[in-house]
Amino acid sequence: MDKKIVLKNVFFDGAKRDILIVGNLFEKVTRPLELADYEGAEIVDCSHFAIMPAFYNGHTHAAMSLLRGFADDMELGKWLNEYIWPTEAKLTPDDIAVGSHLAVLEMIKSGTVFFTDMYWHREQTMRVVEEMGIRAAIGVTFAEPLMSPEAWAANVDFLKNHTGESERVQLVVMPHAIYTVGEEKTAELIELAHAENYKIHTHLSETMTEIKNCMEQFGCTPVEFWKRLGGLNSNFSAAHCTHFTASDRKIFAESGATAILNPCSNMKLNSGIPQVAEMLKDGMKLGLGTDGDSSNNNLDMQEEMKTIALLAKYLGTAETLPAEEALKMATCNVAQFFGINAGRIAEGCLADCLLIDLNNERMVPCYNIYSNWVYSANSSAIDSVMCNGKFVMRGRHVDGEEEILRDARECAARLVAK
Amino acid sequence: MDKKIVLKNVFFDGAKRDILIVGNLFEKVTRPLELADYEGAEIVDCSHFAIMPAFYNGHTHAAMSLLRGFADDMELGKWLNEYIWPTEAKLTPDDIAVGSHLAVLEMIKSGTVFFTDMYWHREQTMRVVEEMGIRAAIGVTFAEPLMSPEAWAANVDFLKNHTGESERVQLVVMPHAIYTVGEEKTAELIELAHAENYKIHTHLSETMTEIKNCMEQFGCTPVEFWKRLGGLNSNFSAAHCTHFTASDRKIFAESGATAILNPCSNMKLNSGIPQVAEMLKDGMKLGLGTDGDSSNNNLDMQEEMKTIALLAKYLGTAETLPAEEALKMATCNVAQFFGINAGRIAEGCLADCLLIDLNNERMVPCYNIYSNWVYSANSSAIDSVMCNGKFVMRGRHVDGEEEILRDARECAARLVAK
Repeated sequence: MDKKIVLKNVFFDGAKRDILIVGNLFEKVTRPLELADYEGAEIVDCSHFAIMPAFYNGHTHAAMSLLRGFADDMELGKWLNEYIWPTEAKLTPDDIAVGSHLAVLEMIKSGTVFFTDMYWHREQTMRVVEEMGIRAAIGVTFAEPLMSPEAWAANVDFLKNHTGESERVQLVVMPHAIYTVGEEKTAELIELAHAENYKIHTHLSETMTEIKNCMEQFGCTPVEFWKRLGGLNSNFSAAHCTHFTASDRKIFAESGATAILNPCSNMKLNSGIPQVAEMLKDGMKLGLGTDGDSSNNNLDMQEEMKTIALLAKYLGTAETLPAEEALKMATCNVAQFFGINAGRIAEGCLADCLLIDLNNERMVPCYNIYSNWVYSANSSAIDSVMCNGKFVMRGRHVDGEEEILRDARECAARLVAK
Repeated sequence: MDKKIVLKNVFFDGAKRDILIVGNLFEKVTRPLELADYEGAEIVDCSHFAIMPAFYNGHTHAAMSLLRGFADDMELGKWLNEYIWPTEAKLTPDDIAVGSHLAVLEMIKSGTVFFTDMYWHREQTMRVVEEMGIRAAIGVTFAEPLMSPEAWAANVDFLKNHTGESERVQLVVMPHAIYTVGEEKTAELIELAHAENYKIHTHLSETMTEIKNCMEQFGCTPVEFWKRLGGLNSNFSAAHCTHFTASDRKIFAESGATAILNPCSNMKLNSGIPQVAEMLKDGMKLGLGTDGDSSNNNLDMQEEMKTIALLAKYLGTAETLPAEEALKMATCNVAQFFGINAGRIAEGCLADCLLIDLNNERMVPCYNIYSNWVYSANSSAIDSVMCNGKFVMRGRHVDGEEEILRDARECAARLVAK
């Protein structure tokens, strides 16, 4: 029989409620519980907690956690070519496992239970995700300058065999970017994704250099490039989207594709800022991501959510992107793209949620809990994190965290000594 | 005899050290300790901690903590006139004490030991600051539309009598803004500040509406207005400075005045963003503030520091405002303006500091501790806070926090019921 959990006296939608979780789903949220619902259930005292949807991180490179703070305060080209790529070339599969552990720990601690990962040695990351109890859309990543033809073919085989997919892990076709995967290869990957029923995720319109080179090489913007190849539809999501033209926004909105904005990374690397107010006006589907730990330098979706809400108001009006809408960009909008019925506290949805400590000083007073959560709090207000009906953090403790930090420190020391 | 504290094995400047505090000062930081230094000292095991300067918040309205989340997602004029000012008019001195307690608790929890406060019922706030062990520059605030002539005269008397100044509290002359204090009254306050040796602090060039009205009324920018009245010098600091012209920046830099930037509030209220990259280039003295809890919506200087660092890179280049310089804007730059020898971990400086938990997942790995502290961490990495040689938070606990939160909740409930 499915495990039952009752979140007792939890604050949701303006009132204290008892919420029933059966197995991995919210069974009763606003409907009153009956006596039978409590029978055999684990009762969790939530009288000091509010419930919030857990975060869905739409774009990251998890194992880059090992390179947090390794190179800062420089522009994207120099940062990638002189620091990140040469160091990444030294990463072994074991290192990737260590880095993924650190990243997933950091994500759980800041309330994230799902991430879209574009990186290498995906099997290690998939194993860590399974082990630590969260979800991921794991990229099978393609980049011509960084891969042998054999490695490319192996990736294609991997996708054709649907290797390693599970209840909590899905695979995604990920051409790295227009400047690393050419027209012909991009077309092949679009066909593959379509035939095998995969989503596509890529870096898009991140810097002005990318736009300029794309215009020179293909005579169109990156968005037009993808449209021309037939890749722009509701199965397509792109990270960054920092330099969309008005026409790009219109094309993108009409296609039903999802843009994953990463404002902290974009500002830190001087790439620009996404025109979020215009994007909202044009009806684009928008989600949020943190990008990797070496360009942000954290995986904190609460911080990203506040940042995009502030930028939206700066670029639009003070009324643009109210707190509750910013929260959706960090939760259900990302889940929805990946076909996951989650990111909301609602009956029938997957039981992914956070218990927020109402005794945290930044949640007091509480005129509007969404305002407090988006604008005032930070991740330290998260007491517990649930994914798929199971607690992955309780009382701010995650199993195995000491070992994960020890391994990460040792690995980083080896990496710089190499 | 002065109390001695040894911070044992604390990480500072690339190495583990023993740091000696005698009374309220750092006595030995990089010099090796001798046996006699440990005698009679409280030894604090810091083997998992790094030391960082505590934050100095250059601009806030502490007791507005009671209005956190009370009104969001609207522009400054509507927000002030329809929501904030009518509600503030109901605040009693007792309410101000409750709100100041909540604000100081929030500040300590996020590593701040000093704040510049512009508000009403200053005696209550001064008492709370004394009681909770931190520092403040407390405004004697002037705003013609909100004050009777008697209240104005009482403020002037208060300043002439230097009432309530102490080791940790100084008074500051605070005309609210150009649009609330006219030319004649501003000139009088400049003279008073000069005669009685006070600093001046005001809101300046916050919105385009302010600039436009100032141009119409006085035929000059707000910066030129202050220059014309002779108020612009090293004893002058201004909050916001969102809409400085190139000429304003030059005038301001030459005057030796300090600009206190509040980027989160400016974005949230759609006021604009301070041109921090140009300001740095023009050699302006820059500090940071959070503004009040109802326009930010928190008092977290770590968050403000990351935000200004990101904006600086967005507006300048990826090299603009490296982590260590951003930290200075949130610490010693503010202290320096107020003539306080603090905001740095250095011999002879006031012992105001933070112990940062190196086992916090966002401090791992640690290639560059300033990068981790500015870009990756959040306030949850602060284990302990010291002000003036005394711990005001240890192991994340602040004395009396439960009562402060209870009182704040009750007060907020009364406020909305009025």
